[in-house]
Amino acid sequence: MTRPVVITDIARADAATAAALGAHGVATVHEAMGRTGLVGAGIRPIQTGARVGGTAVTVLSWPGDNLMIHAAIEQCREGDLLVVTTTSASSDGAFGDLFATALKARGVRGLVTTTGVRDTADLRDMGFPVWSSAVHAQGTVKATPGSVNVPIVVAGATVRPGDVIVADDDGVVVVPRERASTVLSAADARVAKETADREAYGSGRELSLDRKGLRPLLAELGVEYLTQADYQARDDDGA
Amino acid sequence: MTRPVVITDIARADAATAAALGAHGVATVHEAMGRTGLVGAGIRPIQTGARVGGTAVTVLSWPGDNLMIHAAIEQCREGDLLVVTTTSASSDGAFGDLFATALKARGVRGLVTTTGVRDTADLRDMGFPVWSSAVHAQGTVKATPGSVNVPIVVAGATVRPGDVIVADDDGVVVVPRERASTVLSAADARVAKETADREAYGSGRELSLDRKGLRPLLAELGVEYLTQADYQARDDDGA
Amino acid sequence: MTRPVVITDIARADAATAAALGAHGVATVHEAMGRTGLVGAGIRPIQTGARVGGTAVTVLSWPGDNLMIHAAIEQCREGDLLVVTTTSASSDGAFGDLFATALKARGVRGLVTTTGVRDTADLRDMGFPVWSSAVHAQGTVKATPGSVNVPIVVAGATVRPGDVIVADDDGVVVVPRERASTVLSAADARVAKETADREAYGSGRELSLDRKGLRPLLAELGVEYLTQADYQARDDDGA
Amino acid sequence: MTRPVVITDIARADAATAAALGAHGVATVHEAMGRTGLVGAGIRPIQTGARVGGTAVTVLSWPGDNLMIHAAIEQCREGDLLVVTTTSASSDGAFGDLFATALKARGVRGLVTTTGVRDTADLRDMGFPVWSSAVHAQGTVKATPGSVNVPIVVAGATVRPGDVIVADDDGVVVVPRERASTVLSAADARVAKETADREAYGSGRELSLDRKGLRPLLAELGVEYLTQADYQARDDDGA
Amino acid sequence: MTRPVVITDIARADAATAAALGAHGVATVHEAMGRTGLVGAGIRPIQTGARVGGTAVTVLSWPGDNLMIHAAIEQCREGDLLVVTTTSASSDGAFGDLFATALKARGVRGLVTTTGVRDTADLRDMGFPVWSSAVHAQGTVKATPGSVNVPIVVAGATVRPGDVIVADDDGVVVVPRERASTVLSAADARVAKETADREAYGSGRELSLDRKGLRPLLAELGVEYLTQADYQARDDDGA
Amino acid sequence: MTRPVVITDIARADAATAAALGAHGVATVHEAMGRTGLVGAGIRPIQTGARVGGTAVTVLSWPGDNLMIHAAIEQCREGDLLVVTTTSASSDGAFGDLFATALKARGVRGLVTTTGVRDTADLRDMGFPVWSSAVHAQGTVKATPGSVNVPIVVAGATVRPGDVIVADDDGVVVVPRERASTVLSAADARVAKETADREAYGSGRELSLDRKGLRPLLAELGVEYLTQADYQARDDDGA
Repeated sequence: MTRPVVITDIARADAATAAALGAHGVATVHEAMGRTGLVGAGIRPIQTGARVGGTAVTVLSWPGDNLMIHAAIEQCREGDLLVVTTTSASSDGAFGDLFATALKARGVRGLVTTTGVRDTADLRDMGFPVWSSAVHAQGTVKATPGSVNVPIVVAGATVRPGDVIVADDDGVVVVPRERASTVLSAADARVAKETADREAYGSGRELSLDRKGLRPLLAELGVEYLTQADYQARDDDGA
Repeated sequence: MTRPVVITDIARADAATAAALGAHGVATVHEAMGRTGLVGAGIRPIQTGARVGGTAVTVLSWPGDNLMIHAAIEQCREGDLLVVTTTSASSDGAFGDLFATALKARGVRGLVTTTGVRDTADLRDMGFPVWSSAVHAQGTVKATPGSVNVPIVVAGATVRPGDVIVADDDGVVVVPRERASTVLSAADARVAKETADREAYGSGRELSLDRKGLRPLLAELGVEYLTQADYQARDDDGA
Repeated sequence: MTRPVVITDIARADAATAAALGAHGVATVHEAMGRTGLVGAGIRPIQTGARVGGTAVTVLSWPGDNLMIHAAIEQCREGDLLVVTTTSASSDGAFGDLFATALKARGVRGLVTTTGVRDTADLRDMGFPVWSSAVHAQGTVKATPGSVNVPIVVAGATVRPGDVIVADDDGVVVVPRERASTVLSAADARVAKETADREAYGSGRELSLDRKGLRPLLAELGVEYLTQADYQARDDDGA
Repeated sequence: MTRPVVITDIARADAATAAALGAHGVATVHEAMGRTGLVGAGIRPIQTGARVGGTAVTVLSWPGDNLMIHAAIEQCREGDLLVVTTTSASSDGAFGDLFATALKARGVRGLVTTTGVRDTADLRDMGFPVWSSAVHAQGTVKATPGSVNVPIVVAGATVRPGDVIVADDDGVVVVPRERASTVLSAADARVAKETADREAYGSGRELSLDRKGLRPLLAELGVEYLTQADYQARDDDGA
Repeated sequence: MTRPVVITDIARADAATAAALGAHGVATVHEAMGRTGLVGAGIRPIQTGARVGGTAVTVLSWPGDNLMIHAAIEQCREGDLLVVTTTSASSDGAFGDLFATALKARGVRGLVTTTGVRDTADLRDMGFPVWSSAVHAQGTVKATPGSVNVPIVVAGATVRPGDVIVADDDGVVVVPRERASTVLSAADARVAKETADREAYGSGRELSLDRKGLRPLLAELGVEYLTQADYQARDDDGA
Repeated sequence: MTRPVVITDIARADAATAAALGAHGVATVHEAMGRTGLVGAGIRPIQTGARVGGTAVTVLSWPGDNLMIHAAIEQCREGDLLVVTTTSASSDGAFGDLFATALKARGVRGLVTTTGVRDTADLRDMGFPVWSSAVHAQGTVKATPGSVNVPIVVAGATVRPGDVIVADDDGVVVVPRERASTVLSAADARVAKETADREAYGSGRELSLDRKGLRPLLAELGVEYLTQADYQARDDDGA
């Protein structure tokens, strides 16, 4: 790490916008961003059914060391979501129920971490949602410096402090702070369109092939509709 | 891909047989097939407690592209199960709740895919069961041709259109269409035998070592029964 | 394998101590052991909410072969926990509901295995808890010798017969038989301390940064507290 | 497995065609097949610089068991290539220098296996090329039946006995026996075209963007050419 | 992706500085940056013994699609290094010898890609060094838009166009353009110090324990020096 | 970790025996031990063609921390081989050319580590052989205590200080100190037998099927020899 710092006065995305993005969920927000911002599929929820939106407080720690999570708690406030990574890959259980107790007391909405977590039964009982790379009880030390509220890369996605984090059963997506309200509008529009689609498909009234105008594309790409017999005959010709 | 096609008139295994195989579940059907047909352990259910049997409609797509799933819906009918793979590995979320809505309206019983899926909370709420390699919200495009109802390889198992797919909490197994009724008979027989075994073991009346006649095999293979003391003594002799 | 054996009279840790360690759970026991004994994070529960402690009966099998599990059942008794590994990695479904039925009838508290398991819906319904590397229906043979109640390595942790195994949603930890009562005392002490911590953090009365005396350590390690503006300024100087 | 068999009189692709396909190498042959037939990227050569083509003799073994490789040797003849897989994943070292010695004596051109291999220094010294999923010395037993010369799935690709296998530093591709001569013609054509391309690009005379006519496609897909300043300006508008 | 662009006039780090950083190699440069900037260990060289430094031209492509690599070539010039990633994980062989021929003609020093590559024997023969996540011949299409010279994340490391890329047998490290000359000075200093260390250790004259002053730290951390007998005795007391 | 220690007077296997075992190589020694002792296939050599035998000096470190390697060097002497692991998985580059310089000066024959290594080009140039889980330049700190010369588990294999480590292109095997001379005799015998086998197979004079007496076993296991026509006919009957 370069010089370790704790940044104390980060700018945060608007809280109401973060909450509204959270209500839309990961898939919708990711699409509304032009299919960007997604955290890698290796970061999974430890619970089922949680859906949250919050503003990122970021932590960059040494592997096997959770000292900087202790430092980060103080920087968290109502509506935040803690986002943790390490300088190199670590599945150690850097986070457990005592941290969650402290964060919940400050109004923090959840945790996203590339490390492992432990006390998962307690975390579920507390209703403190967590997304992590692993569940592992392996304890950590408090020996090495790191940083709080610097930009980090989380499973392929860049997270800057104050960005909006949306997380649900599908995973985690990051919305850059500056784009939060634009993305919210796009998400609202998408939901409206999908509601109409859902009605059309659920009633069996229309196929997406027609509704999305995909039949001409299939033809243009050379996709042929054949019977099994014709297909077999063609193959016997050596295609 | 060779020339892309949609086969429109596939022969399907008998629907009642497919349903009956589904009721037996994956482990029983796999054993009834002489321990063949199993899809690799990397394809996992997104829900708990679903158990289904259906006839395969197959999709071969380009990675990151779900155009051919749109085309496949039209080929599905009551009692089918959609089976999707890509020409090279992809964990993108090629499938979500709008597809499930359309498939459910056509009586399709579920999805097995080597890709990722998204909208998983909705899919569970809808009761549309899914087995996939990943949960990931990553969106896909509709730009590249592929095929519907050609033979595909799904996590090491060959699936031909019309084959029976059985899926439950243990995973997924494929029964070739021609063997469906033979396998069903074998599965029925196995269940009868296991019921008797279960009673014998549950009552503590008999050990499998005796019931399966394994004691002579252990002896023949040279497995010795020793006390800790005798084992230690033997080891000190340098065995 | 060297010569295959079944050891018939292993010494076991005290049953009440094993149960009491089980009640503490994996994270607490692992910490009470000085952060040792943990089984690798790849061994995961197939159920949610189970927490058990028991004495290990160990099995060393050939991959794809469950003959020695048959032999091991006879060696199990009330309060034991079966621990299975293979001589080389295998995710085959070497264990299912018939084995669980037999073990439950003998008072065995659960299974930890580096192999796969199957019949997982049944296992959950029966309330027989299992920790495994995979869920996979792949059947196994009964053809190759192995050993029961020899020391084994399970996902990086050494397990000797009679050791205490504690398993819950966080994973699995091994307590050497000789250390069981010492570790129980340490776990009791840790729980008492954590209860006080939890109260302090949950009330928002105190931060761990203060309670654990970490502020001076951060300073000593050179962690600076900066505003965003000062951080930017420093960076522009080329730090 | 269903009933174990050794098929003794398989039809093989033409030997000269197999050799000519081998000379083209994996990437060219895969393209000539319309981008099909590729074995998964997990099967890697243990040597550098080998490039072979041969006709497949296939082996389906139990994990941890190499009995059927012994049986397969007798079925091999000049120009064959041995292709091995197991009913479930196994990285055991099922193949070593003694097998290679026997195969070399029969004119076999190499081995492709989803298992591990050992004696790799010797295999390289002998000039017997091997593609495998792992290098691992773990020994195997000879206890469980399997089959020789039945169709198998090798890392996602279907291999039928007698098909052409092409393998080089890029991996392994399978050419169905019936398509071998058609694919060879297509590969010849492709090489001719690529030679011209190579000259055009190597001289710096032409870009593929122009030679392949891709500029209009980029425009049609909405790809914009911008200066850094214009890009920044656009972003500040919230795009 | 947001709107796809090709940025045509990126600022590049100084060419001589990039070359000098390249000569130092990855480990030295990474240390000189305060242990930052490293690309994940999954990106490996396809050759042995290459060591290069160059300025990044970046490509963000759709998985299974290499259209934007065609577009990127035109943006490359003497001293550059092409850096490619995809919007979601892909091991397809998006790059081969024809691309390398074109890049070599423009003076490009190598390729770093999170995709797979093919024609690896040719690439080694040409002396065009490549670092990739996989070797795989799987062909790609030219159908989906992407961007050239936007910031990308490569195996956990952020790469902006014009940054210095250093790559050798140890992997790949990224030096932000603005820090290039500072890091070069630090690297020079480190090498001087290590030369003295090497002499001290190689002659056996001094241990790092003494030269780095680590003995007092070991004592402070409670590390005890014991004979085997004393250690055993302590253990028997239940430590 | 429990209390950290450096054991200073370990008993070592006989040096000549260790060297002789090294000359036999991994596969032979593993077989001579009854197929035990093998380190997992994830530990790979960074060079080709090295084959060594030595006595283990063991290191147990914290992930991301190489302090205890500094301490271990002093405990090494002529004929030793350093064996390193961490309390939880780490691929950081904990070892590089300066350590190798110091170890080589003391007559140490190589390194086996579950961590990553760096300076691999230099290590190859120096002729200091290394087996590791990864090549990664990621730097480590010197902040956390650990132990030297305690028993450790290395990729599934138990290593006690003073045990013989044999390593070559196939991987790494551990021979318990007490068994070293017995294993050497068994390895000598095995080599003699294999030399005769090699001659028999290489001349084409005899098949292993006959030499090992496997034909009757195949028959007993129900393996049938069929022509393609008979196999097809049988299948059409529904087998």
